[in-house]
Order: sequence, then C-alpha cells, then structure tokens
Amino acid sequence: MTDTMTTQKFKKLVQEQNWERVKAIAFEEHPADFAVLMELLSIEETSQVMNLIPQERQSKILAYFSENRIIEFAHFVGAQNFAQTLNVMSSDDRADLLQLFEPPFYDDILHAMAKVEREDIKQLLSYDEDSVGSIMTTDYSTLSPEMSVDEALHKLRREAREVETINRTYVIDDNRKVLGMVKLENLILADRTRPIKEIMQEETMAISLKESPEFAAKQISKYDVVALPVVDEAQRLCGIVTYDDALDVIEEEATEDFHHQASIGKISGDILSASWWLLYKKRIGWLVLLVFGNIFSGAGIAYFEDTIEAYVALVFFLPLLIDSGGNAGSQSATLMVRALATGEVVLKDWSKMMGREILIAALLGLTMALAVSVLGAIRGGPQIAMVVSMTMVLTVLVGSIVGMSLPFLLSKFKLDPATASAPLITSIADAAGVMIYFAIATAILPAVV
Amino acid sequence: MTDTMTTQKFKKLVQEQNWERVKAIAFEEHPADFAVLMELLSIEETSQVMNLIPQERQSKILAYFSENRIIEFAHFVGAQNFAQTLNVMSSDDRADLLQLFEPPFYDDILHAMAKVEREDIKQLLSYDEDSVGSIMTTDYSTLSPEMSVDEALHKLRREAREVETINRTYVIDDNRKVLGMVKLENLILADRTRPIKEIMQEETMAISLKESPEFAAKQISKYDVVALPVVDEAQRLCGIVTYDDALDVIEEEATEDFHHQASIGKISGDILSASWWLLYKKRIGWLVLLVFGNIFSGAGIAYFEDTIEAYVALVFFLPLLIDSGGNAGSQSATLMVRALATGEVVLKDWSKMMGREILIAALLGLTMALAVSVLGAIRGGPQIAMVVSMTMVLTVLVGSIVGMSLPFLLSKFKLDPATASAPLITSIADAAGVMIYFAIATAILPAVV
Repeated sequence: MTDTMTTQKFKKLVQEQNWERVKAIAFEEHPADFAVLMELLSIEETSQVMNLIPQERQSKILAYFSENRIIEFAHFVGAQNFAQTLNVMSSDDRADLLQLFEPPFYDDILHAMAKVEREDIKQLLSYDEDSVGSIMTTDYSTLSPEMSVDEALHKLRREAREVETINRTYVIDDNRKVLGMVKLENLILADRTRPIKEIMQEETMAISLKESPEFAAKQISKYDVVALPVVDEAQRLCGIVTYDDALDVIEEEATEDFHHQASIGKISGDILSASWWLLYKKRIGWLVLLVFGNIFSGAGIAYFEDTIEAYVALVFFLPLLIDSGGNAGSQSATLMVRALATGEVVLKDWSKMMGREILIAALLGLTMALAVSVLGAIRGGPQIAMVVSMTMVLTVLVGSIVGMSLPFLLSKFKLDPATASAPLITSIADAAGVMIYFAIATAILPAVV
Repeated sequence: MTDTMTTQKFKKLVQEQNWERVKAIAFEEHPADFAVLMELLSIEETSQVMNLIPQERQSKILAYFSENRIIEFAHFVGAQNFAQTLNVMSSDDRADLLQLFEPPFYDDILHAMAKVEREDIKQLLSYDEDSVGSIMTTDYSTLSPEMSVDEALHKLRREAREVETINRTYVIDDNRKVLGMVKLENLILADRTRPIKEIMQEETMAISLKESPEFAAKQISKYDVVALPVVDEAQRLCGIVTYDDALDVIEEEATEDFHHQASIGKISGDILSASWWLLYKKRIGWLVLLVFGNIFSGAGIAYFEDTIEAYVALVFFLPLLIDSGGNAGSQSATLMVRALATGEVVLKDWSKMMGREILIAALLGLTMALAVSVLGAIRGGPQIAMVVSMTMVLTVLVGSIVGMSLPFLLSKFKLDPATASAPLITSIADAAGVMIYFAIATAILPAVV
C-alpha cells in the first residue's frame, strides 16, 4: 500500500471528485489494499468509484470486500450490473460470493449472468460444502498428449489471462481423463518439437471430488505444490485447487477448532459482522448442557454435607482444587486436539503417550500440591494441608488422563476430537475433584459427633 | 503413494535386498511418501537405502524425515557424509535442519560443507528466529533490467534446477536493489526482443528483513502470491519467502496460540517426541501461578464463612456457578484471541463489540439462570433459587466482559492476546463469582443469629 494513502485521504479525493487520481490509485494499489481504502466510503461513493474502473479490475477488488459490503453493493447497483462483474471473476471466487445472497435476489443475479458462467456456477454450487468441489476453480488450461511443446506454449499464451495459473497444466485425453502434468518451467526447458506426453510427469497427485477441503489443503502443504487436480470417480478432470485456497482452508479449520475448544459451535462468516442472535445460538448450547453436567458436582457435595458442616475451612480450597484439575486437564486435551488436527499424532500413538502423560501429570500434581500445602497449613492446619495436597495430586492426575484420552476416544468414534473442549474437561474434572476431595477429607479428618 | 506399497512391504523388500526395486520406488514415490515408507527401517537399513539414491534425491527425502530420525541418521553416517547431502539441499531446508544439532557435531557438519553453502548458512542462521530471515531461501534467480526477454529466458533455463522457483523472478540493479518483478508467464507472453525493464512489474510487495515470519505469511495469504522478496534497509534483495513456508508458519502460529489458550508455553518441535521434562516445564508455570491466583477465591469464601455455615446448601451450587462464569468468559476470550490473530478484528473494534457482547452475555446468563433456578428450587427452596439465578446472570456477565476485554488490553500493551488463556479467565471469573455469590446470599437470606 502506498505509504501516504489512507482511508481518510482517499475519502477526501472521492469527495473532491478527483476521478483521475482515484482511477490511477485503483490501478497502482493491489486490489486487496484498494478494497481497504474504500472502507470509509458511503455505498453511493463506492458505486461511483467502481463505475470508473474496468469490469475485470472491479471483479478483483470486489473479491476483497467484506461480506456486508458486497451484499450492500450488489443491492445498490442491482442484480443486472452485479452479474456483469461476476461474469469476469474467477470461478471459485464467484461461487463463494454468490452464496452470500438469498432468493429472490440470488436468482436475479444468476439469470442476469452469461450462460457459460451460469452453468459453471450451478455446477460448482452443487458440490457439498464439505467437499473439495466447493473450493476448487474451473479456470484452468489443459493440454493434450499429442501436442508439441511449441503448440502447448502457444495454447498457454492464448489462455494465460483467463485461467488461475499456467504454472501447472494438466494433460488430458479426449474423455478428460487426467494423464499427467506439465510445469511451465519444464515446458520452457524442453525441446520445442517434443510431444507433451514425453515430457509430462505422470504422477499428478490428483484428489477425488469426494475428499474434504481440509484433505486437499493438507496434501498441498505436504507435497509443497502450487495446485492439485480434482477428479471424479472416472478420473476425469473437474477442476483444480490452488495453494491460496489451501491457506484459507487451513486458517478456517484452525479457527473452527479454536472455537470448539471453548465449546462454541461452527460460525461461518466473520465475527465482527456476526449478529448477536447467531453468536448467542452458537454459545448457549454447551453452556446449558454443562450447567446440567454440574449436577454431579452438586450431588457429590450434598453427599458429604456432614463433613463440610464440620470443616467449613474445606470450602476455602474447593475452587482452587477443582480448577487445578480442570486446568491441567485442559492442557492435556488441547495438546492432543491440536496434535490430532495437524496429523502430528495418530490414533495408535495413544498407548505410547499415556505413560509419559501419567509421569508428567504426577509431577505437575506434586509441584502444585507443594504450593498449596503451604496455604493449607496456614489456613486450616496440618491435617487440612494433607487432605488438600493429596487431593491436588489425584485431581490433576485424573484431569490430565481424562483430558488426554477423551480426544482420542472421540476420534476413534469418528467424532470431532475438538469436542473435548476445555469447559467439558473442566466439568468432568470438577465432579471428580469434589468426590476425591471430600472422600479423602471424610477418611482422614476426625469425625465430629 | 502407490496404493499397494506399505511400510511393512517396503521393509520386506529392503530385507530381501531387492535393491533394484527399492531404488525404483525411491523415484516413483514423492519424497514425502518415501520418507514415510522408510519409517519401519532400522538406522542401518535407512543408511543402506539412502546410499542407493543420488545425493540430490536423498536431500529431498531427508527434508521429510522426523527430527529424531534426522539426528540419528546424521550421527550414523557421520558429519562428512551428512554435509555432502546438505550441500545439495535447498538453503532454507538446510538451515532448518542444521538447527537440530549441537556442538561439537554441529561444527563438524559446518566444516565439512562446501564454502559457498557454509557462508550462506551462517548468514541465514544469523537471522533472529522471529525474523522473516529465518524462513526465507537464498535459492532464487535474478534478472537485470537491461536484459532482453530472450536473454532472461535463457538465464532462467540455465538456473531453473538450482533455484526454488522461477515463477517469479526479481529484477535488481548492480547494488542488488530491487527494481521490479517478472512472472514467468509474462516472460513467455512478451516479445522476445523487449528489455526486461519494460515488461517488469514495479510493485514487488517486498518485505523488510526485520518483519516477522507471521507478517510474511499474512502478506502471502492476503495478496495470494506464490513468493515475496525480502529486502534489507537499503532495499537490497536478501532472499525470497515462498507460499509453502507461509503454510507452515500459519500452522505453527495456530498451534502456538492453541497451546497458549490452554496456558501452555511455546513448544518447538513435535509433541510425539517431546521429552516429559520439556512438557512439564511448559505446563507447570501457569498452573502454579493460578494456584496462587486462587487465593482470592479462598479469601472471598473465608470472608463469608458465617453465611456458608448457616446455609451449607449454597456450597452445592458453588462449582456450577463459578464454572459457568469461567466457561462463558473462555468463549468470549477465545473468540477475540482468534479474531485478533487472523486480523479479522483490530484494536479499534473493541468499543463496537462491547455493546453486542453485553447483550449476548445477558441473554446467556438469563438462559442459564432459568436452567439453574429449577435445580436451586428443588435443592434449596425459592430463596436459594433466587440467589443462585441472580449470581448466574452476574457471573456470566462479568466473565464475558473480562474474557472479551483482556485480549484487547494485552494486545494494546503489545503483549500476546493469547495469554488471556481459558485457565486465567476461569480464575478471574472464579474470584468474581465467589464474591458475587456470597454477597448476594448474605444480602438476601435471613441472617442467622
């Protein structure tokens, strides 16, 4: 971004109707930055500025607008005009964008689009949100195996502007079956007269249309490739997934797991513009469930009512003890959830890691018991200190073992390991902590008659 | 990966000394997959297999070994042999790999390397781990502005095998100052006789050597580019960062934030092979700190000792109430930490989001109060139910406001927002919950004489 250009200054230029300068900036700045510059403009001004810019550039800038801005803009300029801009947009961005609209406006846009683009978008939108089809693009070049290198270069030169990348081009037969892949650098290195089939690489690492976007992203990351071809059951080329989509998918996946770890449901779209009702819905489910889950802790306390009445000092340490078990357990759960998500750890590693976890948890518990025993001795005397210390070691141990095992267990039953959220582990550790605490107290402290 | 080849089958081939087949597989499989195939081999067998493979291919496979395997392998073959393989590796992979070793073996490897590579690696390793220098590569081609397109293509053809990518090449003057960038596709589209300076793009989006790896990754993701040039203060080209490094950085960053959210310190290297001592160290710090933090909850309880002695039923609801505040607070904190990390939300959005957060938290609190009032009425009668319900609304409100604000506050003071971990928020919510609970109880419930 130009150092000196700010959203403030840009708004001023627009208000002064300095169209020449505005238009120049639209080409000097990267579309991503230009979209940011337009942030302070009213929707009327946005439309005025966009009108100055050729449709192809417009479509690139539009792809960086916020969701709210896109919706506002589309309604302001009307379905007809909006469809014109969509026509020249890359196919995956177009499909993403169209999903922001609802009928009847959605249908109005679709009808106003060119036939080829309309068919293409219907195809792309027909793929499941959890399939790689939902993130792939259909803007790619193909080569045939009999072409010469020279013919291939000519074809790529002609199509370069229309497609997402010519760095990797796929070689297909008459039935669109993928035969191989050619890198642009190999094309320019090769003898001009050789046929493509001789210089192509046969391993294309094609992925099936049925795979998930996360799988595609992981393959791209694993093999360090710029793009991967996507094929149907008959190995026919349907589209390509590029590294920039992989970056987005990895980021979205991480966000989803983050939210799950705090017992928040899946939120599509951005937080900033999410409605209070949406956020309420995504948060309340687990919170209420956990309220009922905590009946167990309450029941445990009720069972030991006599002990509590005799030794009220025990209550002082209750929040500390149950929290500590929950904290240690959340640490273990988080380590496992993330390691399972990145593929660093797989199901069969469970037993291998269990031994280490018990050792670590025992040490954590002992260290924390040492810290808490001082407090215990001061507030409640040596016997209370002993009860509190023993409870600390055991709750940390139980919390850690549950925290480590639950993500594996969920994963084994094909459930999302991230469901083993910190709040869930905390509730389990609470109930366990209450039972351990008062059971030890009842056993060790002299009974009051 | 070939469908039929498994680590088991591969081990058998090696044990049968079917070297011809093993060597063929080393070229058929992607280096990433071949590294996986070798997982079950002993270190002697690994070395035997690697000996069959030309050094260049070896270096690619080596880059996919696990850290433990690399260390084991290097010590087995000796510094001299290991250095030979490093010589042909890409410069950023080489630097990453070398960091696994400690003196004196580290120095042995360095001494055994070729002079150019040694100087290069010293340079790369001199960059701070938090600087983009630590992830960039120095294997790139450059062009000069006066060259013709034809000359440029010839130069790239010669250098293609040595460099990480020729898809984007940077144009530099005699002082290595970056003047512009040329995409390979533009080169093949252009007239062969035109000078590079006429077809190059002047906006290179160069980033400073001082920037963080995360910044580089975000720029690559934002602008959807394959690579970015890295320059020093005098705008001289020092290296390039490629999209595959960005993918790794984004994944590592997310992992670090995940761990921070559960109050775990930064762990470099993988979890599976981490020692119990390392994990203990990374986990104990916050746990002990939180133990002392919980003194506040204990002090609160001590203050209200009379009320508790009079109404032991209040203790039943204690874990439930303090947990609920912590859970709602962790949700808010996690939403903010992640949104700040992805850049979806920035500092100035705080006030905008506060109003919405209070509305949501109030609704969450009311819903949870409704759920808990039933339990309260059954266990403790209508008065206790009222105390519990009111406490629920207030603790959820306080927890959410603290959870939402703390990440912003940390961010404002240039601290890591992820320090607002779930356990920290839980401890704060606990202390607040205890005070609110017993203060309301003391006020509402009839005093016992």
